[in-house]
Amino acid sequence: MSVGPEPAGPSRKIVDAVLFDTFGTVVDWKSGVAEAVEAIAFRYGFDVDPVEFALRWRAHYQPAMEPIRSGAREFVTLDELHRENLIATAREMDLPIDRIEAADLEWLNRAWHRLEGWPDSVAGLTELKRHFIIGPLSNGHVALLTNMAKHADLPWDVIIGSDVTRSYKPDPNAYLGTARLLDLPPERVMLCAAHNSDLAAAQHLGLRTAFVARPHEYGPSQRTDLHATGVWDVIARDIPDLAAQLINHTATG
Amino acid sequence: MSVGPEPAGPSRKIVDAVLFDTFGTVVDWKSGVAEAVEAIAFRYGFDVDPVEFALRWRAHYQPAMEPIRSGAREFVTLDELHRENLIATAREMDLPIDRIEAADLEWLNRAWHRLEGWPDSVAGLTELKRHFIIGPLSNGHVALLTNMAKHADLPWDVIIGSDVTRSYKPDPNAYLGTARLLDLPPERVMLCAAHNSDLAAAQHLGLRTAFVARPHEYGPSQRTDLHATGVWDVIARDIPDLAAQLINHTATG
Repeated sequence: MSVGPEPAGPSRKIVDAVLFDTFGTVVDWKSGVAEAVEAIAFRYGFDVDPVEFALRWRAHYQPAMEPIRSGAREFVTLDELHRENLIATAREMDLPIDRIEAADLEWLNRAWHRLEGWPDSVAGLTELKRHFIIGPLSNGHVALLTNMAKHADLPWDVIIGSDVTRSYKPDPNAYLGTARLLDLPPERVMLCAAHNSDLAAAQHLGLRTAFVARPHEYGPSQRTDLHATGVWDVIARDIPDLAAQLINHTATG
Repeated sequence: MSVGPEPAGPSRKIVDAVLFDTFGTVVDWKSGVAEAVEAIAFRYGFDVDPVEFALRWRAHYQPAMEPIRSGAREFVTLDELHRENLIATAREMDLPIDRIEAADLEWLNRAWHRLEGWPDSVAGLTELKRHFIIGPLSNGHVALLTNMAKHADLPWDVIIGSDVTRSYKPDPNAYLGTARLLDLPPERVMLCAAHNSDLAAAQHLGLRTAFVARPHEYGPSQRTDLHATGVWDVIARDIPDLAAQLINHTATG
């Protein structure tokens, strides 16, 4: 039996929700996609560098969302954009994609639903979940993010996909629409990302920000986002370090 | 390293997702709301029967959604409907609601975010989660359902609130819009509810159905929904029994 309402006053927590960019920040898309490409190449006898294929497929990602961000194209999910980008990538790399059976092509396209977390992701998220609402703030859609969470054991509390806000980051509605659905003001929401540009967009809208470096997202020759380049609220080595910093902050006020 | 795509063919599982009505089916709203009413009554020295207040507050629930279902009113969340219904209930019961401070009134209204599961709910959901996507299919909105899950340890994989589909059950879009966001055909989604009318709406739209009796939802004098009154796919004693029946079906079917 409750003895009554809590005394009023601001929460001691820095935020109520910690949301995550997923591709690159929580999950290792390069390895997961390259693995699926390799499996298809093996089955069909294709000669292709799976990692190069994955990197080129991903290179189509940002340009493909541009017409939707600008309003020139109706919202479609990443499944559709990934399918278009897969066909374009196969053409670039002279992969005879027409030989792949429809079910296998769909399996390959859904490699983006079956990615694994970075080695620290599940432990860090599990710790954060004890103190905060956690969820993705990703360009992935609900089905993709749900399947990814089941596959990689990501313990999200809530999944608000891009098909809910019908917006792709850095469209302001992707951040603000998500905060609104959680009934939280932007300053009670933190975005954690391995990409400085994503954090800059979130910070501009009033969200709190946390940078986690993922220096091997694109492989050993990565030259971008190796370090924090903005004044973010938290800079962490990995997600458990983010959890330790936020929970320490909560405990000490 | 994956050796390649899975062989094609139908999944052996009866469905991919098992979704739940929440108020009454997963959580005990009557006890939780009565407890908050009692705490407020104690603080303000009000003489009120907390359970009767909770039942009357809930009696406004279905009528309040009608104008939104019919299109006569724009969608608003249950927080807003609950607030209106709270004021109406206080008037009916001669409770001097104007004496309640704004923060306490908000705390009372958000009792619907702080409900506890029935004793079997968490164990049953935890077992189902090992085999199926689980989530609410509720008239609650994302923030309410997220707060409820944190409070009651409900281990949902995904939360698609009424403010995502902007529909209140039994509006067909509440069921079909949720299935669409999961990228599943209706027949790959099961609704579990303690309310035959909810299951009838879902079945009519092609979803699978499971009835779990909650004969004390409204208290000892409850006369409705004591038994399954339709031809549902599963009739279960409680959520662990539902899990046992579905997982047994998966293993043998």
